[in-house]
Amino acid sequence: MSVSSTETWSRRMWNVVQKAASSFVWEGDLKLSYLPFIVNGRQVGIIPPIMMEALSVSQPDLFEFKNNEVHLSPSLTTYAERTARVGEFIAKCRQSGNFITLQGWRNENYAVSRSYYDTPLFEMERSATCLFGVKQYGVHVNGYYKHPIDGICMWIGKRSSTKQTYPGKLDQIAAGGLPAGMSIKECMMKESEEEASIPRNISSKAVSVGAISYFTEDERGLFPETQFIYDLELPADFEPTVKDGEVSQFCSWPLSKVKEEIATDRFKPNCSLICLDFLIRHGYITHDEEPHYLDFLSSIHQTHF
Amino acid sequence: MSVSSTETWSRRMWNVVQKAASSFVWEGDLKLSYLPFIVNGRQVGIIPPIMMEALSVSQPDLFEFKNNEVHLSPSLTTYAERTARVGEFIAKCRQSGNFITLQGWRNENYAVSRSYYDTPLFEMERSATCLFGVKQYGVHVNGYYKHPIDGICMWIGKRSSTKQTYPGKLDQIAAGGLPAGMSIKECMMKESEEEASIPRNISSKAVSVGAISYFTEDERGLFPETQFIYDLELPADFEPTVKDGEVSQFCSWPLSKVKEEIATDRFKPNCSLICLDFLIRHGYITHDEEPHYLDFLSSIHQTHF
Repeated sequence: MSVSSTETWSRRMWNVVQKAASSFVWEGDLKLSYLPFIVNGRQVGIIPPIMMEALSVSQPDLFEFKNNEVHLSPSLTTYAERTARVGEFIAKCRQSGNFITLQGWRNENYAVSRSYYDTPLFEMERSATCLFGVKQYGVHVNGYYKHPIDGICMWIGKRSSTKQTYPGKLDQIAAGGLPAGMSIKECMMKESEEEASIPRNISSKAVSVGAISYFTEDERGLFPETQFIYDLELPADFEPTVKDGEVSQFCSWPLSKVKEEIATDRFKPNCSLICLDFLIRHGYITHDEEPHYLDFLSSIHQTHF
Repeated sequence: MSVSSTETWSRRMWNVVQKAASSFVWEGDLKLSYLPFIVNGRQVGIIPPIMMEALSVSQPDLFEFKNNEVHLSPSLTTYAERTARVGEFIAKCRQSGNFITLQGWRNENYAVSRSYYDTPLFEMERSATCLFGVKQYGVHVNGYYKHPIDGICMWIGKRSSTKQTYPGKLDQIAAGGLPAGMSIKECMMKESEEEASIPRNISSKAVSVGAISYFTEDERGLFPETQFIYDLELPADFEPTVKDGEVSQFCSWPLSKVKEEIATDRFKPNCSLICLDFLIRHGYITHDEEPHYLDFLSSIHQTHF
């Protein structure tokens, strides 16, 4: 095992990973101040302390506290009813001005379920999901090409300086949250077209290569997130171009540069994790050389609850 | 999300994964009958109940019970002392005939440490590691080639009917446990040569693509295992051949056949998991179609302790 030359990078990257993927562990004492969120008998989230008062005071008929759990009222039996009533509640929360995350209202609904592959129980405004610790799903595309001298080069996007979240940070060639009712592949092709002007005859060849799951908490709320991943090998003469303004520019970097940059705070944190996974899968970070190899893998494949 | 055509396979595969990767969870009540194994202040294993009497009665000077933990005597301060004294103890356990696993004595020493990348504290006969719940590490090689009509085809080995463990089961083209002091890549090339007659000028091109970690228990003991994984694309006209007799024959299958077979009990359980990871990474099992996709990923990337 040779660690000498990689030790500094390894430690820096481990700090990035711990911040981006390991800041919330729901066990022990935390289970007293964070409560499971139950809908129709199934846990679909974790309620953080910042939400408790709003839930208990404002809408006693909508949420029930029992057995140290928060239950959505069982009187709401349909997808439409739950979506409407929770939607009204969240709109009131927004008016109260008490919740930072709702200042970034998206007008985009996310499906709420025990897991992505379960039938959704209702849907919820995207910016509110972190107030209920509802799992969020997204798609990331690794756009790359093979350079005759530099080897694999990856296209990196710089987020617009006016973007609500992580303005100016480095990102994949295309990525986005999964709106309710859209397939993962369709979402990938839509984001590739909108963010990087990649035509569908190219993006449709992207290869589904896995997913990463991690859990973080910040001042907005709780983020148990899963990102489905595609690798998209692009023609060497293809250049992504800005389209919807979410990205301000693209550049392509050899993997040595990607490796250096993801260990800094210049990347959007979860994009660092996606690139890390790419570097591991493509043999650029290897078993024998990287002392945090197994820590990296377990951090990006967490079970949420 | 289309699940209809895959549902039967999905359920069968989920049963295989649960057996191969989810049969031991070290929490709650289990922590009363399984104790952490501490060496030099670091936890390096979990002692299962079948070992408690032997530890407490036979060698009171070698193992100390304190704070619901089992400590190797701190009087043993060097690698060599620990290896020798624990080795003597295990040899006596073997003579007692009380431990099934020791009937499969390997004469191969494994390194004992908190994690693979930590400095080893001592070494221990391979067949005894499950009596101490010491983490075991191995290497698996996915040998494949691209067939003009069938697409990616994978070489599958059938284990010899005289092998100590899992005789007659299906396996990767090459795989093996990591002996103390050997690099992962060197182990991969050695096993590729010994088991499948793959020359080093070919195996040296194998790509490091990740690792899977899982935890099982059986009548022999506890198995917190990590397998480092290589993908090796072989020339289409290359045929692996039996060399050391650990494998009785090789055949190559298209991925459709691999997918079917790994959901049966004809595969060695952990080899099913390695193939599953390959099918996910190569886009043969996709996000949109496989309802246990995220369950599979979290099951094969467990944190041991």
